[in-house]
Amino acid sequence: MLLLVLDGVGGYRTTRRHSELAMAHTPNLDELAATSALGLHDPVGRGITPGSGAGHLGLFGYDPLRYRVGRGTFTAAGLGVELAEGDVVARANICTLTEDGVIADRRAGRMSTEEARTVCDLVNEQSFGDVDVELVVEMGHRALLRVRGRGLHPDVADTDPQRVDVPPIAPAPLTEAGVRTAETIRTVLERVRKVLAHRKTGNFLLLRGFDTRRELPDFPGRYRVRAAALATYPMYQGIARLLGFETRYVPDLAAAVRTLPELVRDGVDFVYVHVETPDLAGEDGDLEAKKAAIEAVDALVPAIRESGVEVLAVTGDHATPTQLSAHSWHPVPVLLNGGTAPADGIAEFNEVSCRQGSLGRFPAYELMPQILAAAGRLAKFDGQRHGM
Amino acid sequence: MLLLVLDGVGGYRTTRRHSELAMAHTPNLDELAATSALGLHDPVGRGITPGSGAGHLGLFGYDPLRYRVGRGTFTAAGLGVELAEGDVVARANICTLTEDGVIADRRAGRMSTEEARTVCDLVNEQSFGDVDVELVVEMGHRALLRVRGRGLHPDVADTDPQRVDVPPIAPAPLTEAGVRTAETIRTVLERVRKVLAHRKTGNFLLLRGFDTRRELPDFPGRYRVRAAALATYPMYQGIARLLGFETRYVPDLAAAVRTLPELVRDGVDFVYVHVETPDLAGEDGDLEAKKAAIEAVDALVPAIRESGVEVLAVTGDHATPTQLSAHSWHPVPVLLNGGTAPADGIAEFNEVSCRQGSLGRFPAYELMPQILAAAGRLAKFDGQRHGM
Repeated sequence: MLLLVLDGVGGYRTTRRHSELAMAHTPNLDELAATSALGLHDPVGRGITPGSGAGHLGLFGYDPLRYRVGRGTFTAAGLGVELAEGDVVARANICTLTEDGVIADRRAGRMSTEEARTVCDLVNEQSFGDVDVELVVEMGHRALLRVRGRGLHPDVADTDPQRVDVPPIAPAPLTEAGVRTAETIRTVLERVRKVLAHRKTGNFLLLRGFDTRRELPDFPGRYRVRAAALATYPMYQGIARLLGFETRYVPDLAAAVRTLPELVRDGVDFVYVHVETPDLAGEDGDLEAKKAAIEAVDALVPAIRESGVEVLAVTGDHATPTQLSAHSWHPVPVLLNGGTAPADGIAEFNEVSCRQGSLGRFPAYELMPQILAAAGRLAKFDGQRHGM
Repeated sequence: MLLLVLDGVGGYRTTRRHSELAMAHTPNLDELAATSALGLHDPVGRGITPGSGAGHLGLFGYDPLRYRVGRGTFTAAGLGVELAEGDVVARANICTLTEDGVIADRRAGRMSTEEARTVCDLVNEQSFGDVDVELVVEMGHRALLRVRGRGLHPDVADTDPQRVDVPPIAPAPLTEAGVRTAETIRTVLERVRKVLAHRKTGNFLLLRGFDTRRELPDFPGRYRVRAAALATYPMYQGIARLLGFETRYVPDLAAAVRTLPELVRDGVDFVYVHVETPDLAGEDGDLEAKKAAIEAVDALVPAIRESGVEVLAVTGDHATPTQLSAHSWHPVPVLLNGGTAPADGIAEFNEVSCRQGSLGRFPAYELMPQILAAAGRLAKFDGQRHGM
């Protein structure tokens, strides 16, 4: 089984234009669609715009409203940063503030990983009094902030307002339990601001997804599969690692596809491949880039089909429409091919064609049982109290 | 945001004919549909015929299976009748019994509010021993029965058989807790029968929706909106009032539409408009009248679109097919327009076209998150423990 996740691939049709999937030239995906079952999934729930972590939990069969894991925890897992009981972590964007303290660029011009490392080093050289603070570079402007100390609690609201021309939000508690920690984070950020003040770009941090150490039910045990994850971004390796996947870095989808036959030979039952590019283009609001990202995936579909994969699911973890330059609440096209999956005979893969598909519209956490079923991996249910 | 509820607008297609929505001439709704996301909702659940209260709770995002509120309580709220702890209320239809005690007309020829007031006065002049009884006129043959006394409990079954040519149902307890109250109601109704016996029409009461004082989570607080309700019937003002809407009487939809620009200017974020006419025609089994009611709404769609509303949802609280002359279990067409709602490009608004829409078929309580999402009112979900 292969679950190919095209990050942020979903879009939506407006009166002005079709979605990116509909506009991209995708002969191979369309041909695949013709022999697949199509549908639309809601990553978290209707109307809910998911973060990538929540979107992925859904795809892996974990209801994101039940399994609440913050972005910080996923990022830590991706970076291989071990969390101790009581550590508080957040995903940090290195951003650029103007002299007046308003956000000029939430991503500091998508700075290089190299430059981000300089920023992290500057922060890590400081002493923060009662707490230990570590800023670990992830990729580009993305980093992890880990705060270790006594009595910390992750109930702190994001400081990232998710837009520019406003100042960052002051750290605020989400509950009574987070009051002291919000105060601590405020002190930490004040110091960070001073330390980075001499820099024109990349001179502050926007924090989101505060969380602490979490344990999730093991994916291979739950579904009785040997599972491997191929991803470029640490965050996605992190999600997979938290769930007990064997994880492997690949530089891009082409490399992932080249790895597939080997995994199939090695007896891996379930492979998750993450492709980040459609989301990056979506967040930039770059229609041509998003189409190109989709078309690049399309070009690799024949190789995927020849890799020995038996059941193939292609979908996204959420929509990132270029109209909005952000994640959105729209449902995401999904295609299930092979095994006992029906062939709907609809030779197009996009938001409109998927409406007509036999899978209908369903919560993302119901995808896994359908992949497993198509692969003949689920026993007959006859009132058992101890099944999946 | 505007939620336009066409009461009972839903219908269904049979081998003989299309639904009322499909048969009505609705150029404006169809044009609106072309740039909207379409779907079907189940007000309470598949196969379940909702009362108006339950149907509305669903539309407002409250799962009617979780929030159980009887019609009596909604009616009391609509009439502004304050309920004390322990009061039992029921919605009362003033009906006509034959001399043999079978129901000749469940609505006493849809008597005037004036005449209903005479009936209420006759009842209210009486003494009912242990309990205080008040019959409050609502509109036409509709009234509220309030019983105040010691140890009363609302677990009493409806006495309205919902059809004619049978006698009213004797008050019966739904649980052990309702035994004594059912007995009390029986005594009250016997007295009412005597008091009204001289009348040819409008000589008895059919009771339904027994309930007591209830409190519901506040709508404006829950969705962080300033919310106003425009309704003609007290019942719908009552639902909205129970949920914390500012409520306003309007004589009809035209008046509601004239009020919209003012509400938008005043900073009201969410407006609920209730239109009763399709349900009245549906209950009468009057196909032409239901088509006309829908066409009258259609004529006002352009004015609604020009009122400054950003996101518009048009739907019903349940179906009232003229084939059945009653509420029914059929799913209800829904249209979501504006903001980030997709444009499905389907230029028809009815039960058949809505099957093809991108919203799919969903429980009514999932409409609110989609309206809010289309209006950009929901934050991104990233595993937060305290969001939304």
